[in-house]
Amino acid sequence: MTYKSGPGFAISVKLKIKNHPKILANLVSAISELGGDIRNMNFIKAEKNKTIREITINIQNEEHQRIIIEALKNFEGVKILEIIDKTFHIHQGGKIGIYNKFPIKDSEELSRAYTPGVARVCMDIFKNRDHVYSLTIKSNMVAVITDGSAVLGLGDIGPEAAMPVMEGKCMLFKEFGEVDAFPIAIKTKDVNEFVSIVKNISVPFGGINLEDISAPRCFEIEKRLKEELDIPVFHDDQHGTAIVVLAALINVGRLLKKDIKKFKIVISGAGAAGIAIANMLCDYGIRNILVCDSKGILYEGRSNMNPYKEEIAKKTNLQKIKGFLSDALEGADVFIGVSAPDILKPEDIKKMSEVRVVFALSNPDPEISPELALPLVKIMATGRSDYPNQINNVLAFPGIFKGLLEVKAKGVHKDMFFAAAHAIADIVKEEDLREDYIIPSIFNKEVAKRVAEVVAQKARELGLARC
Amino acid sequence: MTYKSGPGFAISVKLKIKNHPKILANLVSAISELGGDIRNMNFIKAEKNKTIREITINIQNEEHQRIIIEALKNFEGVKILEIIDKTFHIHQGGKIGIYNKFPIKDSEELSRAYTPGVARVCMDIFKNRDHVYSLTIKSNMVAVITDGSAVLGLGDIGPEAAMPVMEGKCMLFKEFGEVDAFPIAIKTKDVNEFVSIVKNISVPFGGINLEDISAPRCFEIEKRLKEELDIPVFHDDQHGTAIVVLAALINVGRLLKKDIKKFKIVISGAGAAGIAIANMLCDYGIRNILVCDSKGILYEGRSNMNPYKEEIAKKTNLQKIKGFLSDALEGADVFIGVSAPDILKPEDIKKMSEVRVVFALSNPDPEISPELALPLVKIMATGRSDYPNQINNVLAFPGIFKGLLEVKAKGVHKDMFFAAAHAIADIVKEEDLREDYIIPSIFNKEVAKRVAEVVAQKARELGLARC
Repeated sequence: MTYKSGPGFAISVKLKIKNHPKILANLVSAISELGGDIRNMNFIKAEKNKTIREITINIQNEEHQRIIIEALKNFEGVKILEIIDKTFHIHQGGKIGIYNKFPIKDSEELSRAYTPGVARVCMDIFKNRDHVYSLTIKSNMVAVITDGSAVLGLGDIGPEAAMPVMEGKCMLFKEFGEVDAFPIAIKTKDVNEFVSIVKNISVPFGGINLEDISAPRCFEIEKRLKEELDIPVFHDDQHGTAIVVLAALINVGRLLKKDIKKFKIVISGAGAAGIAIANMLCDYGIRNILVCDSKGILYEGRSNMNPYKEEIAKKTNLQKIKGFLSDALEGADVFIGVSAPDILKPEDIKKMSEVRVVFALSNPDPEISPELALPLVKIMATGRSDYPNQINNVLAFPGIFKGLLEVKAKGVHKDMFFAAAHAIADIVKEEDLREDYIIPSIFNKEVAKRVAEVVAQKARELGLARC
Repeated sequence: MTYKSGPGFAISVKLKIKNHPKILANLVSAISELGGDIRNMNFIKAEKNKTIREITINIQNEEHQRIIIEALKNFEGVKILEIIDKTFHIHQGGKIGIYNKFPIKDSEELSRAYTPGVARVCMDIFKNRDHVYSLTIKSNMVAVITDGSAVLGLGDIGPEAAMPVMEGKCMLFKEFGEVDAFPIAIKTKDVNEFVSIVKNISVPFGGINLEDISAPRCFEIEKRLKEELDIPVFHDDQHGTAIVVLAALINVGRLLKKDIKKFKIVISGAGAAGIAIANMLCDYGIRNILVCDSKGILYEGRSNMNPYKEEIAKKTNLQKIKGFLSDALEGADVFIGVSAPDILKPEDIKKMSEVRVVFALSNPDPEISPELALPLVKIMATGRSDYPNQINNVLAFPGIFKGLLEVKAKGVHKDMFFAAAHAIADIVKEEDLREDYIIPSIFNKEVAKRVAEVVAQKARELGLARC
């Protein structure tokens, strides 16, 4: 397996370079030949006969970094002044902070924001507890909560190591949805204790976004919290992914002028995302679905299945089809991978129907590399930003919560998810739809706005809105 | 008891006023005669024969507001356009928010802040858990945690109603200490559960500030959290108050050129603050202390005492003096009230020694009104901003935590508190010390800086610093 240099790993080197027409060109050429992807080269200042420049290079891994730095060290006419790991650099000190919405510069302001003035605000909430929504941060605050048990593809790395992801998630809430979010990594893996803690700390939050909790524990945690809390609880790894997958599928249908409810769909992966996608597609009305885990196709009565897999097998695989992924793919219209790198082979794709849609969403390394798959498929999507059709949860969760908070929602409902999927799909206009543009860019600011509108609307229709 | 109009309760009325030289003057006079304290009067715009103005008025209470509004309604030549409650207005939607330390405008930035780049940062923390300090918000984040059981003087109003105070506290952390703080109001009053929850959610925080938890539960909660957590735990109602009281006492000693260790001190109130002040003064070396609660002087073996009162009685009241507050005050040098309004009578003050220092800290209404006490005492301090010598925790906690976070402290120690008290006292220069200036202004930005410096220094000396 070859890795590509990706923007997730970059160094910035400050170099003092001798002024000679060939040196810079040779330097660029040397870095490129070693596989370094030069992103930026900035002039810093001139000195006598020398120029100080900063070069940002996307690299592959620590070993690759060592090789490039070694080459720079030995480069005639070049001196390294500083090496900065661009990724670590931005994480230093954390990525989010708290700000005050107004200053406290004199005792007049202090006495309104704090004692004695605040007492009246407290007593108002004491008399009418629902006022906590309008008079505190609950109005626009989401908790991003994990136990660190299934962080990205890294597994159970614990709550401390999960924090950079949770903070990143909070950044996305703010950047894309104007929603405030605070990260909480809980130090227990006991389901009862976890549920009890989240309930007990729920007061400051208008919604709970569960994140990176291992399956099947995540299903029980989510179910219980939804039952026991009066604010929305959303497990993004499940529903965020499922919503965006459905949005992409809806646009596949629009583009190919086919009824997606008649598609045969194979899902690879029966963790949080796989189970949620299967459930959502099923609820949407797609019935011909086979779900595979590492042991093969799920079917009723199979061994090695948790109750959630059992339920899905019962709902989708009515004919109790057995076999492996490659068997499942026989005549399938759509492959949806939320599993592991490189498990889909070109010969498997050849077994699919002529529709041949492949969503290879394992990240950062998809179930099949686009280079291998593209010549064989009609439409391909991945989770990566460096290929077309990026299926990314960030298209869903900021808008979902923005809408939920807007109406001070009491809970979530699958009809909101369908509405969100359609809203995301509809951002791509009929005339713009193409094989390589079935899903809007994650940087399209319209997405969260539209998703929020339809979610708020649906909450009102369903009687789940407080206002 | 007469209440003063205070800045904590203000309304802003937008009025359309007929242009006539007398009307405005009469209006101002009418408002003032009704006890309204006009703070600001701003011109908004002119219309034909009329002027629109906004007048901000400090008032006493809802009834007072009703009377003033009624008068304005009936005022010839004046029409009310809008009435805004200034206090409620600033609490709308909460007083703090989350910000991103850098933008996420393209996939390059996204892939460093979030997937895939963030994975390397996670794995770095996974391999060395202490890196959570440098690579996440833990480096500068405090949790402000309550159960809502003893909020201000309002009692057990619950976690929801406590939120405006907790948010206010977070604002003060930011404004005065540049420390990020997040409010968490926990929905349980069970000590074991509370302790377990705080431990389990401690990962994102570099320190825990306990707030408005009723005594004696607060003592056990604090003790257990200090033992079981490896970050500083500080109950501000106890130690914040005690530090600032000690700072003020130190300056009383400087001003009067007396050894405060020889003072006889009477403390009224044996809740969180009273017990903590008694303990801190005792540890500082002041031994002649009598503590009174609503049942009278604490003495060893008295009925109606919790273990914390028992311990204090044993440590301070060696002669087992019995009686009430007025008995305790016989020959006392200093009265420190952290109890209830109007419990100190002028005749009690007359029983004190010629030193006669009164700290009447009950807030907003002190143990004795300054108007009554000032003619009788040498030095007086209150918790209020509208009198000289304001004893306010905000002089302590922002700097304390700023210092603790700076060294990634493992815990707190009473020596830090003494150092902080001296640092606060020292801000008032020898030549500036006066009866009405024994404590610096809470808006003096030097305070938090100096407190942070000495706390960080003390943490290093005590081996409590991680860096």
